[in-house]
Amino acid sequence: MTAPAPKGRLLLVPTPLDHGCDTQTPLDAVLPAGTIQAAAALTHWISENAKSTRAFLKRVDALEPLAQPIQAQQITELPREVHKKGDHAGSTRFDARPLLAPALQGHDVGLISEAGMPAVADPGSSVVRAAHDLGITVLPLVGPVSLLLALAASGLNGQNFAFVGYLPQDAAARTQRVRELEALAHKTGQTQLFIETPYRNPAVWQALVQTLKPGTRLTVAQGLTLADGRVRSAAVSNWRQGSAAELDRAPAVFAIGA
Amino acid sequence: MTAPAPKGRLLLVPTPLDHGCDTQTPLDAVLPAGTIQAAAALTHWISENAKSTRAFLKRVDALEPLAQPIQAQQITELPREVHKKGDHAGSTRFDARPLLAPALQGHDVGLISEAGMPAVADPGSSVVRAAHDLGITVLPLVGPVSLLLALAASGLNGQNFAFVGYLPQDAAARTQRVRELEALAHKTGQTQLFIETPYRNPAVWQALVQTLKPGTRLTVAQGLTLADGRVRSAAVSNWRQGSAAELDRAPAVFAIGA
Repeated sequence: MTAPAPKGRLLLVPTPLDHGCDTQTPLDAVLPAGTIQAAAALTHWISENAKSTRAFLKRVDALEPLAQPIQAQQITELPREVHKKGDHAGSTRFDARPLLAPALQGHDVGLISEAGMPAVADPGSSVVRAAHDLGITVLPLVGPVSLLLALAASGLNGQNFAFVGYLPQDAAARTQRVRELEALAHKTGQTQLFIETPYRNPAVWQALVQTLKPGTRLTVAQGLTLADGRVRSAAVSNWRQGSAAELDRAPAVFAIGA
Repeated sequence: MTAPAPKGRLLLVPTPLDHGCDTQTPLDAVLPAGTIQAAAALTHWISENAKSTRAFLKRVDALEPLAQPIQAQQITELPREVHKKGDHAGSTRFDARPLLAPALQGHDVGLISEAGMPAVADPGSSVVRAAHDLGITVLPLVGPVSLLLALAASGLNGQNFAFVGYLPQDAAARTQRVRELEALAHKTGQTQLFIETPYRNPAVWQALVQTLKPGTRLTVAQGLTLADGRVRSAAVSNWRQGSAAELDRAPAVFAIGA
Protein backbone atom coordinates (compact mmCIF):
# COMPACT_ATOMS: atom_id res chain seq x y z
CA MET A 1 0.00 0.00 0.00
CA THR A 2 1.36 3.39 -0.95
CA ALA A 3 0.03 6.70 0.37
CA PRO A 4 -2.20 8.60 -2.08
CA ALA A 5 -0.29 11.14 -4.20
CA PRO A 6 -0.48 14.64 -2.74
CA LYS A 7 -2.98 16.91 -4.51
CA GLY A 8 -1.82 19.56 -6.92
CA ARG A 9 -2.74 23.20 -6.39
CA LEU A 10 -4.88 25.64 -8.37
CA LEU A 11 -2.76 28.63 -9.40
CA LEU A 12 -4.57 31.80 -10.52
CA VAL A 13 -2.36 33.15 -13.30
CA PRO A 14 -2.84 36.79 -14.33
CA THR A 15 -2.01 37.94 -17.86
CA PRO A 16 -1.21 41.34 -19.43
CA LEU A 17 -4.09 43.68 -20.25
CA ASP A 18 -3.16 44.03 -23.93
CA HIS A 19 -5.34 41.08 -25.06
CA GLY A 20 -2.30 39.74 -26.92
CA CYS A 21 -2.11 42.86 -29.11
CA ASP A 22 1.16 44.17 -27.72
CA THR A 23 3.55 41.24 -27.98
CA GLN A 24 6.50 43.65 -28.26
CA THR A 25 6.40 44.61 -24.60
CA PRO A 26 8.08 41.87 -22.56
CA LEU A 27 5.88 40.21 -19.94
CA ASP A 28 8.08 41.37 -17.09
CA ALA A 29 6.87 44.93 -17.58
CA VAL A 30 3.64 43.88 -15.85
CA LEU A 31 4.26 40.40 -14.39
CA PRO A 32 6.62 39.62 -11.49
CA ALA A 33 9.39 37.07 -12.11
CA GLY A 34 7.62 34.95 -9.48
CA THR A 35 4.46 34.81 -11.59
CA ILE A 36 6.36 34.09 -14.83
CA GLN A 37 8.36 31.27 -13.20
CA ALA A 38 5.21 29.72 -11.70
CA ALA A 39 3.44 29.85 -15.09
CA ALA A 40 6.42 28.28 -16.85
CA ALA A 41 6.39 25.32 -14.46
CA LEU A 42 2.74 24.40 -15.19
CA THR A 43 1.61 21.76 -17.68
CA HIS A 44 -2.19 21.77 -17.09
CA TRP A 45 -4.52 24.72 -17.67
CA ILE A 46 -8.17 25.70 -17.35
CA SER A 47 -8.59 28.58 -19.75
CA GLU A 48 -11.11 31.12 -21.01
CA ASN A 49 -9.58 30.76 -24.48
CA ALA A 50 -7.00 28.12 -25.44
CA LYS A 51 -5.61 30.15 -28.36
CA SER A 52 -4.77 33.16 -26.20
CA THR A 53 -3.35 30.88 -23.51
CA ARG A 54 -0.95 29.39 -26.07
CA ALA A 55 0.03 32.92 -27.18
CA PHE A 56 0.68 33.83 -23.53
CA LEU A 57 2.79 30.71 -22.99
CA LYS A 58 4.90 31.66 -26.00
CA ARG A 59 5.67 34.98 -24.28
CA VAL A 60 6.43 33.18 -21.00
CA ASP A 61 8.80 30.81 -22.82
CA ALA A 62 10.80 33.78 -24.14
CA LEU A 63 11.70 34.70 -20.53
CA GLU A 64 11.55 31.37 -18.73
CA PRO A 65 11.69 28.00 -20.54
CA LEU A 66 8.42 26.09 -20.24
CA ALA A 67 8.41 22.77 -18.38
CA GLN A 68 6.76 21.25 -21.47
CA PRO A 69 6.43 22.42 -25.09
CA ILE A 70 3.23 24.34 -25.84
CA GLN A 71 1.85 21.51 -28.00
CA ALA A 72 2.19 19.10 -25.09
CA GLN A 73 0.39 21.34 -22.57
CA GLN A 74 -3.08 20.19 -21.53
CA ILE A 75 -5.38 23.20 -21.97
CA THR A 76 -9.10 22.77 -21.18
CA GLU A 77 -11.46 25.60 -22.09
CA LEU A 78 -14.25 26.73 -19.81
CA PRO A 79 -17.60 26.03 -21.48
CA ARG A 80 -19.12 28.94 -23.36
CA GLU A 81 -22.10 29.34 -21.04
CA VAL A 82 -19.68 30.25 -18.24
CA HIS A 83 -18.29 33.07 -20.41
CA LYS A 84 -21.71 34.40 -21.27
CA LYS A 85 -23.67 34.14 -18.07
CA GLY A 86 -20.90 34.20 -15.53
CA ASP A 87 -20.08 31.56 -12.99
CA HIS A 88 -22.82 32.46 -10.56
CA ALA A 89 -25.96 32.58 -12.66
CA GLY A 90 -28.21 31.08 -9.97
CA SER A 91 -29.84 27.81 -10.93
CA THR A 92 -27.46 27.23 -13.82
CA ARG A 93 -24.38 27.36 -11.57
CA PHE A 94 -21.60 25.51 -13.34
CA ASP A 95 -20.04 22.52 -11.58
CA ALA A 96 -16.35 22.84 -12.37
CA ARG A 97 -15.15 19.92 -10.25
CA PRO A 98 -14.54 17.56 -13.22
CA LEU A 99 -12.10 20.12 -14.67
CA LEU A 100 -9.91 19.72 -11.61
CA ALA A 101 -9.27 16.00 -12.08
CA PRO A 102 -5.58 16.65 -12.92
CA ALA A 103 -5.13 18.44 -9.57
CA LEU A 104 -6.59 15.45 -7.74
CA GLN A 105 -3.97 13.35 -9.58
CA GLY A 106 -1.17 15.56 -8.27
CA HIS A 107 -0.68 18.13 -11.05
CA ASP A 108 -0.64 21.86 -10.35
CA VAL A 109 -3.31 23.46 -12.57
CA GLY A 110 -3.31 27.05 -13.85
CA LEU A 111 -6.54 29.06 -14.17
CA ILE A 112 -6.17 31.78 -16.79
CA SER A 113 -8.37 34.30 -18.58
CA GLU A 114 -7.85 36.42 -21.68
CA ALA A 115 -6.61 39.48 -19.82
CA GLY A 116 -5.97 40.34 -16.19
CA MET A 117 -6.85 38.26 -13.15
CA PRO A 118 -9.05 35.18 -13.62
CA ALA A 119 -12.27 35.17 -11.57
CA VAL A 120 -12.27 38.97 -11.16
CA ALA A 121 -14.62 40.60 -13.69
CA ASP A 122 -13.89 37.49 -15.74
CA PRO A 123 -14.93 33.83 -15.75
CA GLY A 124 -13.32 31.34 -13.42
CA SER A 125 -14.75 31.71 -9.92
CA SER A 126 -16.69 28.45 -10.31
CA VAL A 127 -13.33 26.69 -10.74
CA VAL A 128 -11.94 28.33 -7.61
CA ARG A 129 -15.05 27.35 -5.67
CA ALA A 130 -14.72 23.76 -6.88
CA ALA A 131 -11.09 23.73 -5.72
CA HIS A 132 -12.12 24.77 -2.22
CA ASP A 133 -14.85 22.11 -2.21
CA LEU A 134 -12.28 19.46 -3.21
CA GLY A 135 -9.69 20.54 -0.64
CA ILE A 136 -7.31 21.81 -3.33
CA THR A 137 -5.01 24.67 -2.27
CA VAL A 138 -5.71 27.92 -4.15
CA LEU A 139 -2.72 30.15 -4.86
CA PRO A 140 -3.37 33.56 -6.48
CA LEU A 141 -0.37 35.09 -8.29
CA VAL A 142 0.37 38.79 -8.68
CA GLY A 143 -0.39 40.62 -11.93
CA PRO A 144 -2.40 43.46 -13.40
CA VAL A 145 -6.08 43.93 -12.51
CA SER A 146 -7.66 46.65 -14.63
CA LEU A 147 -10.38 47.49 -12.09
CA LEU A 148 -7.93 48.06 -9.26
CA LEU A 149 -5.48 50.05 -11.34
CA ALA A 150 -8.41 52.27 -12.40
CA LEU A 151 -9.63 52.65 -8.81
CA ALA A 152 -6.16 53.54 -7.48
CA ALA A 153 -5.67 56.05 -10.29
CA SER A 154 -9.12 57.60 -9.90
CA GLY A 155 -8.55 59.65 -6.75
CA LEU A 156 -12.00 58.45 -5.65
CA ASN A 157 -12.64 56.73 -2.33
CA GLY A 158 -10.56 53.52 -2.25
CA GLN A 159 -11.61 52.59 1.29
CA ASN A 160 -15.19 51.83 0.24
CA PHE A 161 -15.95 50.80 -3.33
CA ALA A 162 -18.03 48.44 -5.45
CA PHE A 163 -17.69 46.89 -8.89
CA VAL A 164 -21.12 46.30 -10.41
CA GLY A 165 -20.30 44.75 -13.79
CA TYR A 166 -22.07 46.07 -16.89
CA LEU A 167 -24.81 48.69 -17.24
CA PRO A 168 -28.15 47.75 -18.85
CA GLN A 169 -28.16 48.01 -22.65
CA ASP A 170 -31.57 49.69 -22.89
CA ALA A 171 -31.16 53.49 -22.83
CA ALA A 172 -33.89 54.22 -20.27
CA ALA A 173 -32.79 51.40 -17.98
CA ARG A 174 -29.18 52.58 -18.29
CA THR A 175 -30.08 56.13 -17.27
CA GLN A 176 -32.02 54.78 -14.31
CA ARG A 177 -29.07 52.62 -13.26
CA VAL A 178 -26.65 55.56 -13.52
CA ARG A 179 -28.96 57.58 -11.22
CA GLU A 180 -29.05 54.71 -8.71
CA LEU A 181 -25.26 54.37 -8.69
CA GLU A 182 -24.79 58.12 -8.27
CA ALA A 183 -27.26 58.22 -5.37
CA LEU A 184 -25.44 55.33 -3.71
CA ALA A 185 -22.05 57.02 -4.16
CA HIS A 186 -23.32 60.23 -2.56
CA LYS A 187 -25.29 58.56 0.24
CA THR A 188 -22.68 56.00 1.36
CA GLY A 189 -19.43 57.43 -0.03
CA GLN A 190 -18.95 54.14 -1.89
CA THR A 191 -17.19 54.56 -5.24
CA GLN A 192 -19.13 52.71 -7.98
CA LEU A 193 -17.12 51.05 -10.77
CA PHE A 194 -18.45 49.44 -13.94
CA ILE A 195 -17.25 48.38 -17.38
CA GLU A 196 -18.71 48.35 -20.89
CA THR A 197 -17.97 46.74 -24.22
CA PRO A 198 -15.95 49.27 -26.23
CA TYR A 199 -18.49 49.91 -29.00
CA ARG A 200 -20.92 51.26 -26.40
CA ASN A 201 -18.40 53.78 -25.01
CA PRO A 202 -19.98 56.78 -26.81
CA ALA A 203 -23.51 55.87 -25.63
CA VAL A 204 -22.31 55.37 -22.05
CA TRP A 205 -20.37 58.64 -22.09
CA GLN A 206 -23.51 60.48 -23.28
CA ALA A 207 -25.67 58.86 -20.61
CA LEU A 208 -23.16 59.73 -17.89
CA VAL A 209 -22.58 63.39 -18.72
CA GLN A 210 -26.29 63.99 -19.32
CA THR A 211 -27.52 62.16 -16.21
CA LEU A 212 -24.96 62.81 -13.48
CA LYS A 213 -24.96 65.98 -11.34
CA PRO A 214 -22.32 68.60 -12.25
CA GLY A 215 -20.40 68.11 -8.97
CA THR A 216 -20.22 64.29 -9.13
CA ARG A 217 -16.73 62.98 -9.91
CA LEU A 218 -16.41 60.73 -12.97
CA THR A 219 -13.32 58.65 -13.86
CA VAL A 220 -12.65 56.89 -17.16
CA ALA A 221 -9.58 54.65 -17.42
CA GLN A 222 -8.46 52.98 -20.65
CA GLY A 223 -5.43 50.87 -21.48
CA LEU A 224 -3.74 51.18 -18.09
CA THR A 225 -0.30 49.46 -18.13
CA LEU A 226 -0.20 49.91 -21.95
CA ALA A 227 1.81 52.50 -23.88
CA ASP A 228 -1.32 54.52 -24.73
CA GLY A 229 -2.97 54.06 -21.34
CA ARG A 230 -4.68 56.98 -19.64
CA VAL A 231 -7.01 57.87 -16.84
CA ARG A 232 -9.07 61.04 -16.56
CA SER A 233 -10.90 61.97 -13.39
CA ALA A 234 -12.87 65.19 -13.00
CA ALA A 235 -16.19 66.70 -11.95
CA VAL A 236 -18.97 66.02 -14.45
CA SER A 237 -19.15 69.76 -15.20
CA ASN A 238 -15.63 69.46 -16.65
CA TRP A 239 -16.46 66.35 -18.66
CA ARG A 240 -19.35 68.23 -20.29
CA GLN A 241 -16.86 70.54 -21.96
CA GLY A 242 -15.43 67.53 -23.83
CA SER A 243 -16.98 65.03 -26.20
CA ALA A 244 -17.47 61.29 -26.48
CA ALA A 245 -14.66 61.30 -29.03
CA GLU A 246 -12.21 61.54 -26.13
CA LEU A 247 -12.88 57.87 -25.38
CA ASP A 248 -10.95 55.38 -27.45
CA ARG A 249 -12.74 52.36 -28.86
CA ALA A 250 -10.98 50.28 -26.23
CA PRO A 251 -12.12 48.57 -23.04
CA ALA A 252 -12.83 51.20 -20.39
CA VAL A 253 -13.35 51.17 -16.64
CA PHE A 254 -15.78 53.85 -15.41
CA ALA A 255 -16.07 55.07 -11.82
CA ILE A 256 -18.53 57.42 -10.13
CA GLY A 257 -17.66 59.04 -6.81
CA ALA A 258 -18.81 61.74 -4.42
CA MET B 1 11.42 83.40 -22.93
CA THR B 2 11.68 79.66 -22.44
CA ALA B 3 8.73 77.30 -22.37
CA PRO B 4 7.72 76.10 -18.87
CA ALA B 5 9.31 72.78 -17.88
CA PRO B 6 7.01 69.82 -18.58
CA LYS B 7 5.23 68.53 -15.48
CA GLY B 8 6.35 65.34 -13.78
CA ARG B 9 3.96 62.45 -13.27
CA LEU B 10 2.46 60.82 -10.18
CA LEU B 11 3.43 57.13 -10.10
CA LEU B 12 1.44 54.83 -7.82
CA VAL B 13 4.06 52.37 -6.50
CA PRO B 14 2.81 49.13 -4.94
CA THR B 15 4.88 47.32 -2.31
CA PRO B 16 4.99 43.72 -1.02
CA LEU B 17 2.37 42.63 1.49
CA ASP B 18 4.91 41.52 4.10
CA HIS B 19 5.04 44.92 5.85
CA GLY B 20 8.83 44.76 5.58
CA CYS B 21 8.96 41.56 7.68
CA ASP B 22 10.12 39.25 4.92
CA THR B 23 13.17 40.94 3.49
CA GLN B 24 14.60 37.56 2.45
CA THR B 25 12.17 37.15 -0.44
CA PRO B 26 13.41 39.23 -3.37
CA LEU B 27 11.01 41.92 -4.56
CA ASP B 28 10.66 40.35 -7.99
CA ALA B 29 8.63 37.51 -6.50
CA VAL B 30 5.69 39.95 -6.33
CA LEU B 31 6.73 43.05 -8.30
CA PRO B 32 7.25 43.19 -12.09
CA ALA B 33 10.63 44.35 -13.37
CA GLY B 34 8.73 47.30 -14.86
CA THR B 35 7.57 48.41 -11.41
CA ILE B 36 11.01 47.92 -9.83
CA GLN B 37 12.73 49.90 -12.60
CA ALA B 38 10.20 52.74 -12.35
CA ALA B 39 10.62 52.90 -8.55
CA ALA B 40 14.44 52.95 -8.87
CA ALA B 41 14.27 55.96 -11.19
CA LEU B 42 12.30 58.14 -8.74
CA THR B 43 13.83 60.70 -6.36
CA HIS B 44 10.67 62.25 -4.83
CA TRP B 45 8.09 60.41 -2.74
CA ILE B 46 4.81 60.98 -0.91
CA SER B 47 4.65 58.23 1.68
CA GLU B 48 2.45 56.76 4.38
CA ASN B 49 5.60 56.06 6.43
CA ALA B 50 9.08 57.33 5.52
CA LYS B 51 10.89 54.60 7.42
CA SER B 52 9.19 51.76 5.56
CA THR B 53 9.68 53.62 2.27
CA ARG B 54 13.44 53.73 2.93
CA ALA B 55 13.40 49.99 3.75
CA PHE B 56 11.55 49.34 0.48
CA LEU B 57 14.06 51.42 -1.49
CA LYS B 58 16.88 49.37 -0.01
CA ARG B 59 15.25 46.24 -1.45
CA VAL B 60 14.74 47.98 -4.82
CA ASP B 61 18.41 49.00 -4.86
CA ALA B 62 19.45 45.33 -4.49
CA LEU B 63 17.84 44.58 -7.87
CA GLU B 64 18.05 47.90 -9.70
CA PRO B 65 20.45 50.70 -8.67
CA LEU B 66 18.60 53.76 -7.39
CA ALA B 67 18.89 57.03 -9.33
CA GLN B 68 19.90 58.68 -6.04
CA PRO B 69 21.16 57.32 -2.71
CA ILE B 70 18.42 56.74 -0.13
CA GLN B 71 19.67 59.60 2.09
CA ALA B 72 19.27 62.00 -0.84
CA GLN B 73 15.70 60.96 -1.67
CA GLN B 74 13.01 63.51 -0.83
CA ILE B 75 10.34 61.62 1.15
CA THR B 76 7.32 63.54 2.43
CA GLU B 77 4.93 61.79 4.80
CA LEU B 78 1.18 62.13 4.53
CA PRO B 79 -0.16 63.90 7.64
CA ARG B 80 -1.43 61.63 10.39
CA GLU B 81 -5.05 62.72 10.09
CA VAL B 82 -5.10 61.26 6.57
CA HIS B 83 -4.00 57.89 7.99
CA LYS B 84 -6.62 57.94 10.70
CA LYS B 85 -9.70 59.36 9.04
CA GLY B 86 -9.01 58.49 5.44
CA ASP B 87 -8.73 60.87 2.56
CA HIS B 88 -12.42 61.42 2.09
CA ALA B 89 -13.68 62.28 5.55
CA GLY B 90 -16.24 64.81 4.32
CA SER B 91 -15.70 68.34 5.61
CA THR B 92 -12.14 67.61 6.68
CA ARG B 93 -11.08 66.53 3.18
CA PHE B 94 -7.32 66.92 2.95
CA ASP B 95 -5.93 69.24 0.27
CA ALA B 96 -2.86 67.40 -1.02
CA ARG B 97 -1.96 69.83 -3.78
CA PRO B 98 1.02 71.39 -1.93
CA LEU B 99 2.63 67.93 -1.71
CA LEU B 100 2.76 67.81 -5.50
CA ALA B 101 4.96 70.90 -5.91
CA PRO B 102 7.91 68.75 -7.10
CA ALA B 103 5.74 67.36 -9.91
CA LEU B 104 4.83 70.86 -11.03
CA GLN B 105 8.59 71.54 -11.16
CA GLY B 106 9.12 68.58 -13.49
CA HIS B 107 9.97 65.71 -11.12
CA ASP B 108 8.17 62.39 -11.26
CA VAL B 109 6.75 61.68 -7.79
CA GLY B 110 6.02 58.25 -6.29
CA LEU B 111 3.00 57.66 -4.04
CA ILE B 112 3.62 54.72 -1.71
CA SER B 113 1.96 53.07 1.26
CA GLU B 114 3.17 50.54 3.84
CA ALA B 115 1.90 47.48 1.98
CA GLY B 116 0.09 46.91 -1.28
CA MET B 117 -1.38 49.53 -3.61
CA PRO B 118 -1.57 53.11 -2.40
CA ALA B 119 -5.07 54.64 -2.38
CA VAL B 120 -6.78 51.22 -2.26
CA ALA B 121 -7.81 50.33 1.31
CA ASP B 122 -4.96 52.65 2.25
CA PRO B 123 -4.29 56.39 2.38
CA GLY B 124 -3.37 58.32 -0.75
CA SER B 125 -6.46 58.98 -2.84
CA SER B 126 -6.41 62.66 -1.87
CA VAL B 127 -2.99 62.90 -3.53
CA VAL B 128 -4.30 61.22 -6.69
CA ARG B 129 -7.26 63.59 -6.76
CA ALA B 130 -4.96 66.58 -6.36
CA ALA B 131 -2.85 65.31 -9.29
CA HIS B 132 -5.92 65.19 -11.53
CA ASP B 133 -6.92 68.69 -10.41
CA LEU B 134 -3.43 70.00 -11.25
CA GLY B 135 -3.29 68.31 -14.67
CA ILE B 136 -0.56 65.88 -13.55
CA THR B 137 -0.55 62.49 -15.32
CA VAL B 138 -1.32 59.58 -12.97
CA LEU B 139 0.42 56.28 -13.72
CA PRO B 140 -0.52 53.22 -11.62
CA LEU B 141 2.09 50.45 -11.52
CA VAL B 142 1.39 46.73 -11.15
CA GLY B 143 1.85 44.96 -7.82
CA PRO B 144 0.03 42.98 -5.14
CA VAL B 145 -3.38 44.12 -3.87
CA SER B 146 -4.48 41.99 -0.92
CA LEU B 147 -8.21 42.59 -1.47
CA LEU B 148 -8.13 41.45 -5.08
CA LEU B 149 -5.96 38.43 -4.43
CA ALA B 150 -8.44 37.43 -1.71
CA LEU B 151 -11.43 38.00 -4.00
CA ALA B 152 -9.90 35.99 -6.86
CA ALA B 153 -9.00 33.17 -4.48
CA SER B 154 -12.42 33.15 -2.77
CA GLY B 155 -14.47 31.46 -5.46
CA LEU B 156 -17.17 34.03 -4.67
CA ASN B 157 -18.77 36.23 -7.30
CA GLY B 158 -16.01 38.36 -8.87
CA GLN B 159 -18.32 40.04 -11.36
CA ASN B 160 -20.14 42.02 -8.65
CA PHE B 161 -18.37 42.82 -5.39
CA ALA B 162 -17.85 45.53 -2.78
CA PHE B 163 -15.14 46.39 -0.29
CA VAL B 164 -16.66 48.11 2.74
CA GLY B 165 -13.62 48.77 4.94
CA TYR B 166 -13.78 47.90 8.65
CA LEU B 167 -16.68 46.54 10.71
CA PRO B 168 -17.94 48.52 13.74
CA GLN B 169 -15.99 47.81 16.96
CA ASP B 170 -19.06 47.60 19.19
CA ALA B 171 -20.30 43.99 19.36
CA ALA B 172 -24.01 44.71 18.79
CA ALA B 173 -23.29 47.11 15.94
CA ARG B 174 -20.89 44.57 14.42
CA THR B 175 -23.52 41.82 14.47
CA GLN B 176 -26.04 44.18 12.88
CA ARG B 177 -23.54 45.11 10.16
CA VAL B 178 -22.74 41.45 9.44
CA ARG B 179 -26.49 40.80 9.00
CA GLU B 180 -26.78 43.75 6.61
CA LEU B 181 -23.82 42.58 4.51
CA GLU B 182 -25.17 39.01 4.35
CA ALA B 183 -28.61 40.25 3.28
CA LEU B 184 -27.01 42.38 0.57
CA ALA B 185 -24.91 39.44 -0.67
CA HIS B 186 -27.98 37.21 -0.95
CA LYS B 187 -30.29 39.86 -2.43
CA THR B 188 -27.95 41.30 -5.06
CA GLY B 189 -25.33 38.55 -5.47
CA GLN B 190 -22.69 41.14 -4.58
CA THR B 191 -19.72 39.65 -2.67
CA GLN B 192 -18.98 41.76 0.43
CA LEU B 193 -15.34 42.15 1.47
CA PHE B 194 -14.00 43.76 4.64
CA ILE B 195 -10.83 43.85 6.75
CA GLU B 196 -10.02 44.02 10.44
CA THR B 197 -7.06 44.81 12.63
CA PRO B 198 -5.45 41.45 13.54
CA TYR B 199 -6.11 41.55 17.29
CA ARG B 200 -9.85 41.60 16.58
CA ASN B 201 -9.71 38.46 14.38
CA PRO B 202 -11.09 36.13 17.10
CA ALA B 203 -14.00 38.48 17.88
CA VAL B 204 -14.83 38.89 14.20
CA TRP B 205 -14.63 35.15 13.60
CA GLN B 206 -17.07 34.55 16.49
CA ALA B 207 -19.48 37.20 15.22
CA LEU B 208 -19.40 35.74 11.70
CA VAL B 209 -19.97 32.08 12.54
CA GLN B 210 -22.65 32.92 15.11
CA THR B 211 -24.52 35.44 12.95
CA LEU B 212 -24.34 34.17 9.37
CA LYS B 213 -26.74 31.57 7.97
CA PRO B 214 -25.31 28.02 7.60
CA GLY B 215 -25.44 28.12 3.78
CA THR B 216 -23.74 31.49 3.35
CA ARG B 217 -20.18 31.23 1.98
CA LEU B 218 -17.41 32.78 4.07
CA THR B 219 -13.83 33.36 2.92
CA VAL B 220 -10.85 34.29 5.10
CA ALA B 221 -7.54 35.11 3.39
CA GLN B 222 -4.31 35.80 5.28
CA GLY B 223 -0.79 36.46 4.10
CA LEU B 224 -1.47 35.90 0.39
CA THR B 225 1.79 36.14 -1.63
CA LEU B 226 3.74 35.21 1.55
CA ALA B 227 5.26 31.84 2.41
CA ASP B 228 2.59 31.12 5.04
CA GLY B 229 -0.28 32.58 3.03
CA ARG B 230 -3.59 30.78 2.89
CA VAL B 231 -7.19 31.22 1.90
CA ARG B 232 -10.12 29.20 3.15
CA SER B 233 -13.57 29.44 1.61
CA ALA B 234 -16.52 27.33 2.74
CA ALA B 235 -20.14 27.38 3.84
CA VAL B 236 -20.61 28.79 7.34
CA SER B 237 -21.81 25.35 8.51
CA ASN B 238 -18.29 24.08 7.77
CA TRP B 239 -16.60 26.99 9.53
CA ARG B 240 -18.63 26.22 12.66
CA GLN B 241 -16.76 22.92 13.00
CA GLY B 242 -13.51 24.88 13.45
CA SER B 243 -12.42 27.51 15.93
CA ALA B 244 -11.16 31.07 15.99
CA ALA B 245 -7.69 29.66 16.60
CA GLU B 246 -7.52 28.82 12.90
CA LEU B 247 -7.00 32.52 12.19
CA ASP B 248 -3.46 33.79 12.58
CA ARG B 249 -2.87 37.07 14.37
CA ALA B 250 -2.13 38.59 10.98
CA PRO B 251 -4.04 40.97 8.72
CA ALA B 252 -7.02 39.16 7.21
CA VAL B 253 -9.42 39.84 4.37
CA PHE B 254 -12.94 38.51 4.95
CA ALA B 255 -15.56 37.95 2.26
CA ILE B 256 -19.22 36.97 2.45
CA GLY B 257 -21.01 35.55 -0.57
CA ALA B 258 -24.20 33.86 -1.65
